[in-house]
Amino acid sequence: MKNYEKYKVGYFVPPVPSCDWVKKDHITKAPRWCSVDLRDGNQALIVPMSLDEKLEMFQYLCKIGFKEIEVGFPAASETEFEFLRTLIDKDLVPDDVTLQVLTQSRKHIIEKTFNALIGAKHAVVHLYNSTSVAQRQQVFKASESEIIEIAREGARLIKEIAEQYPDTDFQFEYSPESFTGTEMEFARDICNEVIDIWEPTPEQKVIINLPATVEMSLPHVFASQIEYMSKNLHDRENVVLSLHPHNDRGTGVADAELGLLAGGDRIEGTLFGNGERTGNVDIVTIAMNMFTHGVDPKLNFSNMPEVVEAYEKATGMTVDPRHPYSGALVFAAFSGSHQDAIAKGMKWREAMDPTRWTVPYLPVDPHDVGREYDGDVIRINSQSGKGGVAYVIERDYGFVIPNPMRAEVGYMMKDISDKHHEELSTKEIFNYFSEEYINYFDPIDITDATFKHTSSTKSGASDSFSVDMRIDINGEIFNINSEGNGRLDAVSNGLNKTPYNFNYKFVTYSEHAISADSNSKAAAYVCIEDQLGNQFWGVGTHDDIILASVNALVSAVNRMNKKDHFVR
Amino acid sequence: MKNYEKYKVGYFVPPVPSCDWVKKDHITKAPRWCSVDLRDGNQALIVPMSLDEKLEMFQYLCKIGFKEIEVGFPAASETEFEFLRTLIDKDLVPDDVTLQVLTQSRKHIIEKTFNALIGAKHAVVHLYNSTSVAQRQQVFKASESEIIEIAREGARLIKEIAEQYPDTDFQFEYSPESFTGTEMEFARDICNEVIDIWEPTPEQKVIINLPATVEMSLPHVFASQIEYMSKNLHDRENVVLSLHPHNDRGTGVADAELGLLAGGDRIEGTLFGNGERTGNVDIVTIAMNMFTHGVDPKLNFSNMPEVVEAYEKATGMTVDPRHPYSGALVFAAFSGSHQDAIAKGMKWREAMDPTRWTVPYLPVDPHDVGREYDGDVIRINSQSGKGGVAYVIERDYGFVIPNPMRAEVGYMMKDISDKHHEELSTKEIFNYFSEEYINYFDPIDITDATFKHTSSTKSGASDSFSVDMRIDINGEIFNINSEGNGRLDAVSNGLNKTPYNFNYKFVTYSEHAISADSNSKAAAYVCIEDQLGNQFWGVGTHDDIILASVNALVSAVNRMNKKDHFVR
Repeated sequence: MKNYEKYKVGYFVPPVPSCDWVKKDHITKAPRWCSVDLRDGNQALIVPMSLDEKLEMFQYLCKIGFKEIEVGFPAASETEFEFLRTLIDKDLVPDDVTLQVLTQSRKHIIEKTFNALIGAKHAVVHLYNSTSVAQRQQVFKASESEIIEIAREGARLIKEIAEQYPDTDFQFEYSPESFTGTEMEFARDICNEVIDIWEPTPEQKVIINLPATVEMSLPHVFASQIEYMSKNLHDRENVVLSLHPHNDRGTGVADAELGLLAGGDRIEGTLFGNGERTGNVDIVTIAMNMFTHGVDPKLNFSNMPEVVEAYEKATGMTVDPRHPYSGALVFAAFSGSHQDAIAKGMKWREAMDPTRWTVPYLPVDPHDVGREYDGDVIRINSQSGKGGVAYVIERDYGFVIPNPMRAEVGYMMKDISDKHHEELSTKEIFNYFSEEYINYFDPIDITDATFKHTSSTKSGASDSFSVDMRIDINGEIFNINSEGNGRLDAVSNGLNKTPYNFNYKFVTYSEHAISADSNSKAAAYVCIEDQLGNQFWGVGTHDDIILASVNALVSAVNRMNKKDHFVR
Repeated sequence: MKNYEKYKVGYFVPPVPSCDWVKKDHITKAPRWCSVDLRDGNQALIVPMSLDEKLEMFQYLCKIGFKEIEVGFPAASETEFEFLRTLIDKDLVPDDVTLQVLTQSRKHIIEKTFNALIGAKHAVVHLYNSTSVAQRQQVFKASESEIIEIAREGARLIKEIAEQYPDTDFQFEYSPESFTGTEMEFARDICNEVIDIWEPTPEQKVIINLPATVEMSLPHVFASQIEYMSKNLHDRENVVLSLHPHNDRGTGVADAELGLLAGGDRIEGTLFGNGERTGNVDIVTIAMNMFTHGVDPKLNFSNMPEVVEAYEKATGMTVDPRHPYSGALVFAAFSGSHQDAIAKGMKWREAMDPTRWTVPYLPVDPHDVGREYDGDVIRINSQSGKGGVAYVIERDYGFVIPNPMRAEVGYMMKDISDKHHEELSTKEIFNYFSEEYINYFDPIDITDATFKHTSSTKSGASDSFSVDMRIDINGEIFNINSEGNGRLDAVSNGLNKTPYNFNYKFVTYSEHAISADSNSKAAAYVCIEDQLGNQFWGVGTHDDIILASVNALVSAVNRMNKKDHFVR
């Protein structure tokens, strides 16, 4: 690939190694979350949300637990001004939710911003200016001290104007926009200048937000930048260190997570990573990552399909089928070995400790995010194996296919899926299984069977069974009485009293009660072997377990007939 | 969110700190790439690829530069066996491409695997068995030594059977599947047992592949696991350390990148991260991340739209609009400040150093991945600003809107987009601009104008201009001769000779030749101000620059009429 020489790294590493964070291995506490869905997310949509869509989204964000929501840039956009006023005037902001608005460092913009906030109970006024080398050089054509002066001027104005509105509880936030392309010392200095003007206190902390406006480095470099800043900010104990990652290099979630280890207290992001270009960081994934490490994320994604629906409706975007925790396919196991492990893991967990989630291949219990096992987890295509097929038949229809029979049924489904070039639903799988194996009464049908059991108390004497049967073979009726040392043996002997030649021996037999919805109460499985060693399985069902086993034998014999046609 | 207590971390940190990798800040060399699109990727599709689709995908993977391609599990699937045979029998594998196949540690499977490879020039035989605590306990119900014995037995068989096929150049690969849920000491031991059996040499290295079968930790923990393994494998210099991340926590790319810093030599992944559940790691993103750091990725994504198309066709999946480097929206800038910075950055680069890419907000030059600036980058919706609108009008239509006019035009487009609730194409923007400003001849139309220029050589005397005009106002014709100290002044004076009352003064004027496709050769911009201080812009075009300026003036006057209706 040509042209790689046009590029070089555009980030700056901290002047001193700042990697203490690497010693921590996971996040132990949820950060403060700030949703920027209505600003960063909205501005990146081909069709931004309408007022109604924004109101609906705002209320949904409150519902899932966001306490800080950035609603836009009221001084730059009439729509956003109107939206903000509607929220405040119609009293749609819960008392524990803080509105956040963005402003540039210009007097009339700051004034209009405060104006837009009149009547709000809590508000974050978020000042930003761009600090990167590229922006200073190419866009603002300004020196470092001029750029610092922009920030200082805005900070002073905000502090001054805020005093005119004593009814609102204000917090101030400053972002050195394009932080990831800024020299760390300069980023440190400009933030400290702003902190010094705002003079934070434990009661009125200041938010310093470090955006990966464009993601420019590997995530550990970003984390080290955050740690450096965290260690070098003035009044650190009164500063809330906020992170605002984007996803240009596909590592936005990693930036946020490593950044939290490195000193971040707060995350600005969006649902499912909507936002400019490749998106903002996806708060759903970060929160769920904590959840699966046993940490309360302080956001509620227990009905993920609903979250997806609300998001898709408001934004017109769709959640990718492979999006972590929320995509349509993220719990799907098509491969045989995965299905087998999941099936065993589910049983193990049920037996050992249902209060813990330990199932292989599933990082989260689908039920914890409002998803189902059925249809979502074990799915059958031509790549699937016996384990998955047996699992879904048992789970949904209650048939416990004996181990030695599973491979045969698995290959049957694999072949069908391969030939039809499609995924099979559990229902289709069961229909194919049923049609092939269960109560297969062609050409032989035993339409009546009455057993007699003679047990003897004499030592050494075995029990004996006799049966009176009405056998229908291709429409020809045989009324037969026969005996054997077991019921199936008696039936087998009876079949051989017809003019047909049955040459098979029993291989194995099992049975169980059916727990799932079913008209029958018992299922039986019989395997027989012909003279050449070919094995044939049959499955029988019936209210009466004895007749279920007769049906299984008849099914096996009839299936043998498909290969070795009976001769008289 | 309830139920978080069901979970705890399931990974194991190395017994000694293994964080030397954190000192490196970026990747300096492309790894060996192995595509697993046709195995991991394919097995995760609702409808796996057909034979033809697989062949097409294989050839496309070769085309973009993959030298190692895993094609499946030939002993477990007839389809994959057939696919492999087709590749070999039809001689479809380039000499420098190595086929990779997967096998379990079972004799008949290994034998069938080698059988499927007869005739291949180069092949990697990839042995795996599952090693995690969960899998040992729940699925295999086996002790550590039993699990090691599975690996040893497979390794021995592979070495032995490979000797029967001297015509193929074999490499052996071993994966402790579910590595991320395995104790590091056990993972180390089982890999070393296999290495000891295979006895790698500099000529016949062994691949040890460490899969994040399920992503279970933050990416730096994975990197530390990799570093620990890298430092503790036998014959390390003859081992190719391979990584195979998945993306359950949305940090697969970070795993791969930090893992490469930590000792990884090779990446197994797929295009756009297709694969089980949340997918395998996305090789496109890792490669492009290197590219934007000035490193040759040794894969060719210079025609990304074609790569996307080939992928979507074969898999039936779609590339998300926000997918890094490849999504439809990843170069889009809707916001005003971003558009402004991009426009300035593009000009800066052109002037300063076109061999380097330094444009803000665009991590990669869209042209380097086969994308266009037009339509892809600066896009106009209700969130956009003056900079973007002016930029696209200049870029596509050659009109350089004067700075003081830009805000007005920008707000106009913002409003239109907001009201229509849709994104505007450049064409629509230009049409709205043109209709509103350019050659706006209602009610006044100057249908003829002939100028005379009298210059005097006398000192102190100024030039004088006279004009003969035919003015059409609402269908009423006025033939007027007038004079002024400039051409526009003469026209202006002439307008005031009609019975209408024109009260305005000139504010500013500019003009330029039009370079882009256009019927006209010149454009002029006139701003006038009415008595109340309202300003009105007009734009005129004409082959003749002088008539362009007349047209601009007339347009401005007519636009004023929309507000202040002319009175006689």
